[in-house]
Amino acid sequence: MINKENFENYLSSIIQQDYIVEKSMNYSLLAKSKRLRPLLLLNLLKDFNVDETIGYPFGSSLEMVHTYSLIHDDLPAFDNDDYRRGKLTNHKAFDEQTAILAGDALLTYSFENLANSFYSDSLKIKLIKLLANYSGKDGMIKGQSLDKEFEGKQVSIDDLLQMDNLKTGKLITVALLAACYIANKEEYLNLFEQVGKKLGIAFQIQDDILDVTADVKQLGKSTSDKDNNKSTYVSLLSLNKAKDLVTTLLTEINDLLSDEKNHFDNTKELIAKLANRTW
Amino acid sequence: MINKENFENYLSSIIQQDYIVEKSMNYSLLAKSKRLRPLLLLNLLKDFNVDETIGYPFGSSLEMVHTYSLIHDDLPAFDNDDYRRGKLTNHKAFDEQTAILAGDALLTYSFENLANSFYSDSLKIKLIKLLANYSGKDGMIKGQSLDKEFEGKQVSIDDLLQMDNLKTGKLITVALLAACYIANKEEYLNLFEQVGKKLGIAFQIQDDILDVTADVKQLGKSTSDKDNNKSTYVSLLSLNKAKDLVTTLLTEINDLLSDEKNHFDNTKELIAKLANRTW
Repeated sequence: MINKENFENYLSSIIQQDYIVEKSMNYSLLAKSKRLRPLLLLNLLKDFNVDETIGYPFGSSLEMVHTYSLIHDDLPAFDNDDYRRGKLTNHKAFDEQTAILAGDALLTYSFENLANSFYSDSLKIKLIKLLANYSGKDGMIKGQSLDKEFEGKQVSIDDLLQMDNLKTGKLITVALLAACYIANKEEYLNLFEQVGKKLGIAFQIQDDILDVTADVKQLGKSTSDKDNNKSTYVSLLSLNKAKDLVTTLLTEINDLLSDEKNHFDNTKELIAKLANRTW
Repeated sequence: MINKENFENYLSSIIQQDYIVEKSMNYSLLAKSKRLRPLLLLNLLKDFNVDETIGYPFGSSLEMVHTYSLIHDDLPAFDNDDYRRGKLTNHKAFDEQTAILAGDALLTYSFENLANSFYSDSLKIKLIKLLANYSGKDGMIKGQSLDKEFEGKQVSIDDLLQMDNLKTGKLITVALLAACYIANKEEYLNLFEQVGKKLGIAFQIQDDILDVTADVKQLGKSTSDKDNNKSTYVSLLSLNKAKDLVTTLLTEINDLLSDEKNHFDNTKELIAKLANRTW
């Protein structure tokens, strides 16, 4: 299984720190992180027998988009969180204006970084379409908008699934689909669309579980959902049923990946590791 | 000279209004506007003898980027403006969270829109690099950051020129350079880089002049610079000297465009029209 160290070295070399917005971008981009999305990409590339470093440019663009979404989501107008990734949120460490600009700049640079990469023009365009579509108004942003709409309301499990599939699932799916494009294995797009959806939900339920079982120090972020009066899988299902649902989803993912000739050993190992995460 | 009507019809057909963020995107994107940047692109294409509708996809992506920057720039954390383009600012008509998301979504969709256009892959990549680089951390966003840094401080004319060249000049230059790429006239890139720089400054000085000579109704936006204690060309130079500087810059642009075999009649006519604007 590929670990995050080499990728993180690469990531830290991309953005210079010549002025405050660049410093603010790197402050959040290089903070302690699981690097879940890039690691899914790199491990799936390895399973496809492709040198994982080929995934670095897309992996870093994906991490920039994920990071911009966290910075904006932590703002006072959103969750108003003080801690993220083990340190002060961006607008607390800098200020609100710089945090908004750093988010905008990370989003913009994710596309510039891809356009400047060594991929062929045709692959660049496929990846830009994927990243923009899954993170934009029809994907992650729609999930963030639903999140806001649901705040303070009694919502159903189906509402929550729809919201998390967009807000969390879409960017996780991007990691897997990008590996299919980069490895020229587009026959697997449909399979990994299903895997990404289940993994996104499992990951979000785990977050809700950790929100009630772990403390701020372990998580490195504020546990703001209760404060913000948000429905969660735990509040709707009970802690034990939420845990069972994670187990079911991960078993389903394993089954999806076991029907295939390719054993996807690295991807499975990464997912198994995530199943037991405490952070 | 090409006017904005047909382009605006096209622009209004791009984003569906299925949920609140899409409504918020169109609220600002389709508000009354000079459409300066798309018109520069379309008129320069016409001067290059290219059907101007070929410029519509890039023109709309450029207008999305410009609009996102206005939405975020009007937020309470920035200029805290109540009016823009003749109506309530986005965060006043909707709310802060929706305004931030609408800005993020317009920025993201600008790249998706370009990636989905009829341009060749190679042209798409050139245009994505241009748009991202000139609007991102090394361009417009750097200008917005300087704007904040300068607030409440005594700054020099050189500071102001540097800031406005980034904040306003970069996106105006993008319109002109994009026309060179689309028309396959890359030998003109250098000339239009110079034109864009001068035009951006002239346009910004005009804004400062109108801020003190026009009223909110005429401008369709709040005149917040004085309230926000910002230095302007008028406050640093006097009104008459600021007016002289606009005239000088426009003459220099005309001279740059007159040295060439191509007469650039449509572009010149548009610029001449801008010289006398009162809005």
